[in-house]
Amino acid sequence: MTHPNPKLLFGRRVALLRKGKGWSQEQLALQSGLARSYLSGVERGQRNIALENIVRLAITLGISLSELMDFPTNQ
Amino acid sequence: MTHPNPKLLFGRRVALLRKGKGWSQEQLALQSGLARSYLSGVERGQRNIALENIVRLAITLGISLSELMDFPTNQ
Repeated sequence: MTHPNPKLLFGRRVALLRKGKGWSQEQLALQSGLARSYLSGVERGQRNIALENIVRLAITLGISLSELMDFPTNQ
Repeated sequence: MTHPNPKLLFGRRVALLRKGKGWSQEQLALQSGLARSYLSGVERGQRNIALENIVRLAITLGISLSELMDFPTNQ
Protein backbone atom coordinates (compact mmCIF):
# COMPACT_ATOMS: atom_id res chain seq x y z
CA MET A 1 0.00 0.00 0.00
CA THR A 2 2.99 2.33 0.11
CA HIS A 3 4.95 2.15 -3.11
CA PRO A 4 4.09 4.63 -4.46
CA ASN A 5 1.90 5.90 -1.71
CA PRO A 6 -1.67 7.11 -2.20
CA LYS A 7 -0.90 10.63 -0.99
CA LEU A 8 1.70 10.98 -3.74
CA LEU A 9 -0.57 9.43 -6.38
CA PHE A 10 -3.42 11.70 -5.38
CA GLY A 11 -1.13 14.74 -5.49
CA ARG A 12 0.07 13.86 -8.96
CA ARG A 13 -3.49 13.37 -10.08
CA VAL A 14 -4.54 16.79 -8.82
CA ALA A 15 -1.54 18.44 -10.46
CA LEU A 16 -2.27 16.68 -13.75
CA LEU A 17 -5.93 17.71 -13.76
CA ARG A 18 -5.07 21.26 -12.70
CA LYS A 19 -2.52 21.63 -15.50
CA GLY A 20 -5.03 20.14 -17.91
CA LYS A 21 -7.18 23.17 -17.23
CA GLY A 22 -4.23 25.50 -17.64
CA TRP A 23 -4.48 26.65 -14.02
CA SER A 24 -1.65 27.61 -11.69
CA GLN A 25 -1.61 26.30 -8.13
CA GLU A 26 -2.62 29.78 -7.07
CA GLN A 27 -5.66 29.73 -9.33
CA LEU A 28 -6.82 26.33 -8.07
CA ALA A 29 -6.24 27.45 -4.49
CA LEU A 30 -8.29 30.60 -5.01
CA GLN A 31 -11.10 28.80 -6.84
CA SER A 32 -11.33 26.01 -4.27
CA GLY A 33 -10.83 28.11 -1.17
CA LEU A 34 -7.87 26.01 -0.05
CA ALA A 35 -4.69 27.73 1.08
CA ARG A 36 -2.00 27.72 -1.58
CA SER A 37 0.58 26.27 0.82
CA TYR A 38 -1.83 23.47 1.72
CA LEU A 39 -2.57 22.72 -1.94
CA SER A 40 1.16 22.68 -2.66
CA GLY A 41 1.62 20.10 0.10
CA VAL A 42 -1.24 18.03 -1.32
CA GLU A 43 0.31 18.01 -4.79
CA ARG A 44 3.67 16.98 -3.34
CA GLY A 45 2.04 14.03 -1.54
CA GLN A 46 2.65 15.43 1.91
CA ARG A 47 -0.94 15.77 3.04
CA ASN A 48 -3.41 13.11 4.08
CA ILE A 49 -6.27 15.12 2.60
CA ALA A 50 -9.72 14.42 3.98
CA LEU A 51 -13.03 13.82 2.26
CA GLU A 52 -14.45 17.34 2.44
CA ASN A 53 -11.39 18.86 0.79
CA ILE A 54 -11.26 16.06 -1.79
CA VAL A 55 -14.87 16.93 -2.69
CA ARG A 56 -13.97 20.61 -2.82
CA LEU A 57 -11.22 19.90 -5.35
CA ALA A 58 -13.49 17.70 -7.50
CA ILE A 59 -16.17 20.40 -7.61
CA THR A 60 -13.63 23.10 -8.44
CA LEU A 61 -12.07 20.98 -11.19
CA GLY A 62 -15.56 20.23 -12.53
CA ILE A 63 -15.19 16.45 -12.35
CA SER A 64 -16.71 13.58 -10.40
CA LEU A 65 -15.09 12.10 -7.33
CA SER A 66 -14.58 8.87 -9.25
CA GLU A 67 -12.62 10.73 -11.91
CA LEU A 68 -10.50 12.56 -9.36
CA MET A 69 -9.80 9.30 -7.53
CA ASP A 70 -8.92 7.36 -10.65
CA PHE A 71 -5.54 6.02 -9.61
CA PRO A 72 -4.43 2.61 -8.31
CA THR A 73 -4.23 1.71 -4.65
CA ASN A 74 -1.29 -0.64 -5.17
CA GLN A 75 -2.34 -3.70 -3.36
CA MET B 1 -22.18 20.88 -1.39
CA THR B 2 -24.09 20.08 1.78
CA HIS B 3 -27.42 18.48 0.96
CA PRO B 4 -26.86 15.62 1.44
CA ASN B 5 -23.31 16.04 2.60
CA PRO B 6 -20.37 14.03 1.27
CA LYS B 7 -19.56 12.48 4.63
CA LEU B 8 -23.05 11.01 4.78
CA LEU B 9 -22.95 9.85 1.15
CA PHE B 10 -19.57 8.23 1.68
CA GLY B 11 -20.80 6.52 4.84
CA ARG B 12 -23.83 5.13 3.06
CA ARG B 13 -21.62 3.93 0.23
CA VAL B 14 -19.31 2.08 2.62
CA ALA B 15 -22.26 0.49 4.43
CA LEU B 16 -23.81 -0.59 1.12
CA LEU B 17 -20.59 -2.16 -0.13
CA ARG B 18 -19.92 -3.80 3.22
CA LYS B 19 -23.40 -5.35 3.34
CA GLY B 20 -22.96 -6.44 -0.27
CA LYS B 21 -20.14 -8.64 0.96
CA GLY B 22 -22.25 -9.90 3.85
CA TRP B 23 -19.88 -8.40 6.39
CA SER B 24 -20.73 -6.90 9.77
CA GLN B 25 -19.17 -3.60 10.82
CA GLU B 26 -17.00 -5.61 13.14
CA GLN B 27 -15.72 -7.76 10.30
CA LEU B 28 -14.87 -4.77 8.11
CA ALA B 29 -13.19 -3.08 11.07
CA LEU B 30 -11.09 -6.15 11.79
CA GLN B 31 -10.17 -6.70 8.14
CA SER B 32 -9.25 -3.07 7.55
CA GLY B 33 -7.53 -2.41 10.84
CA LEU B 34 -9.85 0.51 11.62
CA ALA B 35 -11.46 0.76 15.05
CA ARG B 36 -15.08 -0.38 15.04
CA SER B 37 -16.23 2.83 16.72
CA TYR B 38 -14.43 4.87 14.07
CA LEU B 39 -15.93 2.83 11.25
CA SER B 40 -19.37 3.22 12.81
CA GLY B 41 -18.87 7.00 12.80
CA VAL B 42 -17.76 6.90 9.17
CA GLU B 43 -20.86 4.96 8.13
CA ARG B 44 -23.08 7.44 10.00
CA GLY B 45 -21.48 10.35 8.15
CA GLN B 46 -19.83 11.78 11.24
CA ARG B 47 -16.21 11.45 10.17
CA ASN B 48 -14.25 13.48 7.66
CA ILE B 49 -12.25 10.40 6.69
CA ALA B 50 -8.84 11.05 5.14
CA LEU B 51 -7.18 9.57 2.08
CA GLU B 52 -5.12 6.86 3.74
CA ASN B 53 -8.16 5.39 5.48
CA ILE B 54 -10.26 5.70 2.33
CA VAL B 55 -7.60 3.68 0.52
CA ARG B 56 -7.55 1.15 3.35
CA LEU B 57 -11.30 0.61 2.99
CA ALA B 58 -11.09 0.26 -0.80
CA ILE B 59 -8.35 -2.35 -0.50
CA THR B 60 -10.25 -4.25 2.18
CA LEU B 61 -13.45 -4.19 0.14
CA GLY B 62 -11.49 -5.34 -2.91
CA ILE B 63 -12.55 -2.44 -5.12
CA SER B 64 -10.93 0.56 -6.78
CA LEU B 65 -10.96 4.01 -5.25
CA SER B 66 -13.14 5.17 -8.14
CA GLU B 67 -15.72 2.53 -7.31
CA LEU B 68 -15.69 3.38 -3.62
CA MET B 69 -16.04 7.09 -4.42
CA ASP B 70 -18.85 6.61 -6.91
CA PHE B 71 -21.37 9.03 -5.43
CA PRO B 72 -22.37 12.58 -6.42
CA THR B 73 -20.78 15.70 -4.99
CA ASN B 74 -24.01 17.70 -5.36
CA GLN B 75 -22.88 20.74 -7.28
